[in-house]
Amino acid sequence: MMQLNVSLGERSYPIFIGHGLLSDGAVLRGCLQAQDLLLVSNTTVGPLYAELLTAALPDRRIVDVRLPDGEQYKTLEYVSRVLDVLVANRFGRDCTVLALGGGVVGDMAGFSAACYQRGVAFAQLPTTLLAQVDSSVGGKTGVNHPGGKNLIGAFHQPVAVFSDTATLATLPPRELRAGLAEVIKYALIFDAVFLDWLEAHAAELLALQPEALAHAIRRSCELKADVVRRDEREAGDRALLNLGHTFGHAIEAATGYTQWLHGEAVATGMLIAADMSARLGLLSDALVSRVRDLLRRFDLPVQAPRIGAQRAFDYMGVDKKVKAGRIRLVLLENLGAARFTADYSNDALQATLAAHFG
Amino acid sequence: MMQLNVSLGERSYPIFIGHGLLSDGAVLRGCLQAQDLLLVSNTTVGPLYAELLTAALPDRRIVDVRLPDGEQYKTLEYVSRVLDVLVANRFGRDCTVLALGGGVVGDMAGFSAACYQRGVAFAQLPTTLLAQVDSSVGGKTGVNHPGGKNLIGAFHQPVAVFSDTATLATLPPRELRAGLAEVIKYALIFDAVFLDWLEAHAAELLALQPEALAHAIRRSCELKADVVRRDEREAGDRALLNLGHTFGHAIEAATGYTQWLHGEAVATGMLIAADMSARLGLLSDALVSRVRDLLRRFDLPVQAPRIGAQRAFDYMGVDKKVKAGRIRLVLLENLGAARFTADYSNDALQATLAAHFG
Repeated sequence: MMQLNVSLGERSYPIFIGHGLLSDGAVLRGCLQAQDLLLVSNTTVGPLYAELLTAALPDRRIVDVRLPDGEQYKTLEYVSRVLDVLVANRFGRDCTVLALGGGVVGDMAGFSAACYQRGVAFAQLPTTLLAQVDSSVGGKTGVNHPGGKNLIGAFHQPVAVFSDTATLATLPPRELRAGLAEVIKYALIFDAVFLDWLEAHAAELLALQPEALAHAIRRSCELKADVVRRDEREAGDRALLNLGHTFGHAIEAATGYTQWLHGEAVATGMLIAADMSARLGLLSDALVSRVRDLLRRFDLPVQAPRIGAQRAFDYMGVDKKVKAGRIRLVLLENLGAARFTADYSNDALQATLAAHFG
Repeated sequence: MMQLNVSLGERSYPIFIGHGLLSDGAVLRGCLQAQDLLLVSNTTVGPLYAELLTAALPDRRIVDVRLPDGEQYKTLEYVSRVLDVLVANRFGRDCTVLALGGGVVGDMAGFSAACYQRGVAFAQLPTTLLAQVDSSVGGKTGVNHPGGKNLIGAFHQPVAVFSDTATLATLPPRELRAGLAEVIKYALIFDAVFLDWLEAHAAELLALQPEALAHAIRRSCELKADVVRRDEREAGDRALLNLGHTFGHAIEAATGYTQWLHGEAVATGMLIAADMSARLGLLSDALVSRVRDLLRRFDLPVQAPRIGAQRAFDYMGVDKKVKAGRIRLVLLENLGAARFTADYSNDALQATLAAHFG
């Protein structure tokens, strides 16, 4: 088992990474002192792992809530149902909410914890690679709105994250690849050496080779924890993590959040961002090709849906990265180096959108 | 015009108290830099003051939202509607939400601001005495749940509070008295000298004498700001502000949040807390009588509804002040001195409930 620490003053918390953590009562009990636990999962993950976890914490009162599985249920309405369960069971301020599942469960359980009695503790038990390397680290919680993704939410840090790599065995291969897209993202933004390593170990990762997975998760969490520590409230560097997300949001919103997995949209979004960086003279065409080849090696999509440049632009406009009406974007200056900026030509943006969405 | 400062590090903010502040463009512009403003009010206050405020800020884009008037609309559903307006108008992270109205508007506008894009700025423009002395100071925002009051919410500090005493001229007398109940509360908890002053100036306050009102608001805000500064997240001293609230919540919940004003329930709740303190030997019977007389002088209710002790106890149980199943209460050690404790005999609590609710 490995342990990392996310340093955020009084909101610091540990991340544990290991095989079989969900049934490791000693590790779980070390960080979860509450008597009353609300276990939030969904109808896919709950049947696989809820019993294991409950058995590892026999001395606690655990109330089990299972949400329907899917991003389309990440709404205020379902958060409201989770809150109903907390109230109905008379949970006090000293309870802890456990998020067992992927990013959707984590976002909803975390936002429920943030809102219940103006904030109770929560812990993440991510069971997808995406959640293990991304959404379980950093304290972002929330739900979607018909007008845009993650428009409603809160910053609420977990008290601990337990990433059990054994759970990846039950993950559909397509979701594994979507998680690897986020791993690639960290490398593209921060770490060219890690990018080389990913190019060399694609086959092992896709084959779920345990040591390769553990290394990829650990390095991703380190890179994310480091940027969250520097910029908890997303005023600066943390915005770099949105590489590929603004274009990706347009893909997800245009397709109703149902056809593309988040990581798939981010993968294509990163390629679009790389292409736009090349159009602005920041990145060579050869490096854009290297990004495309890497995504293909991980069997990730590289072509956005042909929804038209104007519609893509409209969907980008409701994104949170708008500052005084101007869309700010994360662009690449090199592989392993990114910038967040509103300083680009509109012609380059329009040409990029036309090439990928037109 | 007076100015106080609530010292909370990077979340510090000013409170302005004065006659005619809502039309004082210079003061408003000094604290409200955002171009996009969402003006949240209700169908009672909006028609009285929204135009005044809009005229004072002619260079801004102001979107006007008017909620139905009443505590029964303080729900997640109506917060969801406010969020819909923010999304529909494509407000970015740099917008500011303005709360123009009483505590209900402040709670809902503040919680909407806390949730929108994981937190945007908001400012309070309280138009009731209760909101001016209580809910606009301290950063508590949120909504009710059928299972209990304020069970859903966030701590979100305003960027500024503008308390215009001229607005009290349009306040129904019953609401003025409910606000004075909270003023009495600060005196009972913290300041015996202020309590003497209130006993001596009851007539002037009820007659809306401007200097008396300004003194009462200023001293109340000072006392509240001081305790919020010491304990922003309500881990300690801030809980003292709940004097009368646990008993008061039972009154409000049992009557569906419609028959009693919050301040009225708190008034009766404070008398019940004083009575229980006397039963525990903390306070003399003479001081309990002094509390009762003072409340009567302000024409505030001193008799709880006869809902029965058991029902009152049940409603207290879902209150946020439960710690590991035990109800903690604010009790009086003297006039001007309170304690927050779970160290009391159940017999005294049951006798108190039987005497007031039985």
